Amino acid sequence: MVHGKVFLVGAGPGDPALLTVRAVEVLRAADVVIYDRLVNKAILELAPKTAEKIYAGKRAGKHVLPQEKINELLVKKALDGKRVVRLKGGDPFLFGRGGEEAEALAEKHVDFEVVPGVTSAIAAPAYAGIPLTHRDYASSLAIVTGHRAGNTGKIVNWSKLASAVDTIVILMGVEPLNPQQLS
Amino acid sequence: MVHGKVFLVGAGPGDPALLTVRAVEVLRAADVVIYDRLVNKAILELAPKTAEKIYAGKRAGKHVLPQEKINELLVKKALDGKRVVRLKGGDPFLFGRGGEEAEALAEKHVDFEVVPGVTSAIAAPAYAGIPLTHRDYASSLAIVTGHRAGNTGKIVNWSKLASAVDTIVILMGVEPLNPQQLS
Repeated sequence: MVHGKVFLVGAGPGDPALLTVRAVEVLRAADVVIYDRLVNKAILELAPKTAEKIYAGKRAGKHVLPQEKINELLVKKALDGKRVVRLKGGDPFLFGRGGEEAEALAEKHVDFEVVPGVTSAIAAPAYAGIPLTHRDYASSLAIVTGHRAGNTGKIVNWSKLASAVDTIVILMGVEPLNPQQLS
Repeated sequence: MVHGKVFLVGAGPGDPALLTVRAVEVLRAADVVIYDRLVNKAILELAPKTAEKIYAGKRAGKHVLPQEKINELLVKKALDGKRVVRLKGGDPFLFGRGGEEAEALAEKHVDFEVVPGVTSAIAAPAYAGIPLTHRDYASSLAIVTGHRAGNTGKIVNWSKLASAVDTIVILMGVEPLNPQQLS
């Protein structure tokens, strides 16, 4: 039996020029691309025309494919012998649920490779002229999500966080700007 | 007068394949490369053979070029009409002092572009199989430096930090593993 491989790839903040060299390489050789909502169409077009492209995106609360189905799909396509690129905005391991996918693949003994990406948590402020650390002002940085953290219901400890670090980046923070959710 | 341009470029965690497409582009067109200690030699070789390569690296406490001299050099080379690549390990704005360099360039009205990079703070744990966030375990992340933060003498508030976030990444943390420095 020929086994394929899964590449958990960070697509970066959006601009195709901010993909890594490795990300471009694996995309160009992909048989299957499973991509998220935040992935730029210009990036998808780097994959061969013949590659199967599967949208697994979600909007807050509305998943096209639930996470378990995505995990199953990754495993199935790899066991079919395909080179599968799992493409996620930013970095796959920073609020990207890449950890869960890696676990699912490891459990089924599917070969996989993680291709880290440029996270928007750093790149977006950079383009706005804001260095997250600066010798004169900031020696620590926190990156948190405005969403509750899924299964555990863990929430960010805002009051402690506020005084623990110099810079705070909040990802996915607009929708939960409802005081009840933040408390 | 022809003005050059400075590119503040993140070289990523080391592997040339983890450079961004944009970083490779600007390196290939560089007249001058000013690089830090953590930059892989294979990455430097992407610059033209004819490009001037200037080492500005430092080890803890021992700077080949003080920061003010680096700032001056960037300005001077750009005003000479050169395309200058300032190459830093990881991301230029995350503990990279890119912020100070950007300020110096802006002050002298020198054109510059920031090219974000993959930070080792995320990539190194990823290669070790550690997702920094995971729906079951971690919804927040802090990235801090083990060094004191330069001019302000600001130190990381370890006791608050310990309970404020789920995952903590400490960069440049080995040398200060002297309890007096950490306190």
